Amino acid sequence: MGVTKLKERIIQKGSDLFQVKGFTQTSIQDIVETLDVTKGTFYYYFTSKEELLMEINLRYINDVLEKQVAIMGNHETDARTKIKEVMTMLIKNIDKQGANAKIFFRELNNLNEKHLKIMIGKRKEFYLNLQTIVENGIASGELRPDLRPDIVTFGILGVCNWSYHWFDPQGELTDVQVAHIFADMILNGLEVKNAELMLEE
Amino acid sequence: MGVTKLKERIIQKGSDLFQVKGFTQTSIQDIVETLDVTKGTFYYYFTSKEELLMEINLRYINDVLEKQVAIMGNHETDARTKIKEVMTMLIKNIDKQGANAKIFFRELNNLNEKHLKIMIGKRKEFYLNLQTIVENGIASGELRPDLRPDIVTFGILGVCNWSYHWFDPQGELTDVQVAHIFADMILNGLEVKNAELMLEE
Repeated sequence: MGVTKLKERIIQKGSDLFQVKGFTQTSIQDIVETLDVTKGTFYYYFTSKEELLMEINLRYINDVLEKQVAIMGNHETDARTKIKEVMTMLIKNIDKQGANAKIFFRELNNLNEKHLKIMIGKRKEFYLNLQTIVENGIASGELRPDLRPDIVTFGILGVCNWSYHWFDPQGELTDVQVAHIFADMILNGLEVKNAELMLEE
Repeated sequence: MGVTKLKERIIQKGSDLFQVKGFTQTSIQDIVETLDVTKGTFYYYFTSKEELLMEINLRYINDVLEKQVAIMGNHETDARTKIKEVMTMLIKNIDKQGANAKIFFRELNNLNEKHLKIMIGKRKEFYLNLQTIVENGIASGELRPDLRPDIVTFGILGVCNWSYHWFDPQGELTDVQVAHIFADMILNGLEVKNAELMLEE
C-alpha cells in the first residue's frame, strides 16, 4: 500500500471514530488497531491526535472556501443566484462529507490555541465572503436594503449549517432539494404572495 | 446556606465549567473545589456528573417547551405572529441562559442512552409543535402551501439555534432585534419588493 494511501486511510478512520465516539473518547490506539498498523505509523504522519483533527478541519474549510470563491468569481450570475449556489454547496457538503462535516461543526473546541486561531480566521473569511455577496446584492438593487447584511448572513449560514443535525442522506429529499426549499424561503419568504415564484437556476 | 440553594450552586458552577472546559474535561473534583464543598455534598444531590448534565439539559428544554406551549395556546395570535414569537423566545433564551444554552447544544452526546432518548423525545416534541404552527399557517392561508412544512420548520430552527455560535450579548443588537430581523427575513424574504413590510407586533 502506498504511503499517501495509508495517510488517507488514517484520516478516514480517524474521522469515522471521532464522529462515533467523539474526539476526546477516541485514542490513537483505537485508530491504529482498527487499521491494523502500529502507533509508529500514526506518528510518521501526525505528531498528535490533535494534528489529525486539524487536518480534517482544514481540508473541510479549504474545500468549502475554494468552492465559495468559484461561485463568487462567476460574473454571469447575480447575487440571488450566488446565495442559492452557496447554500446548495454547503448542504451538499454536509451530505457528501458525512463524518468530516460533523467533526468540523462539533470538535472545534478540541483544537489547540494556534490551530483554533487559524480555523476561526478561515471560518470568518467564509462568513465575510458571504456577507460581501449579500452586500453586493443590496447595492445592485436585488436584495432588501432594510435588513442588516451581517445578521442576514448569519441567518443564511444558520439555515444551512444546522442541517448537519438532521439531514438524512437516506431521507425523502436530496441535499439539492432541501437547499432549494431553503433558498426559496430565504429569498422569497413564507408569505402566500410569494408562493411558486421560481428562482433562476 | 439552605439545601436547595446549594444544589442550585452546584448546577450553576457545573454549567459554567462544562461550558468553558467541556463536559468530558471537567471532573466532579473541579466542581466541588471551586465551590469549596466535599465530593460527598455533590453525591448527595447527584449520582454522577452525567446526571448533573441531564439536569441542565432537562431544565433548558422544559423551559423552552413550556414557553412554546404558551405561545401556541394563545388564540388571539395568527401563525405568523406565533412563528415570530417562538423565534424571539429561542434567541432570547440563548442570550439569557448563556452557558446552559451552549451545553444544551454542544453536550447532548455525553448523555447516557436512557437520558439521550428522553432528550431526543423532548427536542422532537419542540420541533413537531413548531411544525404544527407552520401547518396551521398554511391551512389558514397565511403561509405558502408550496414549501414542505417539515423542511421549513428545520430552517426556522436553524436560523435561531445557530445564533448560539455567534450571538454576543454585549454586541450592537439585542436578542429581540436580531430575532425580528430573522423573523422578517423568514416570513417576507430578502426580495426588494418585500422591503419595509412591518410584521404585527
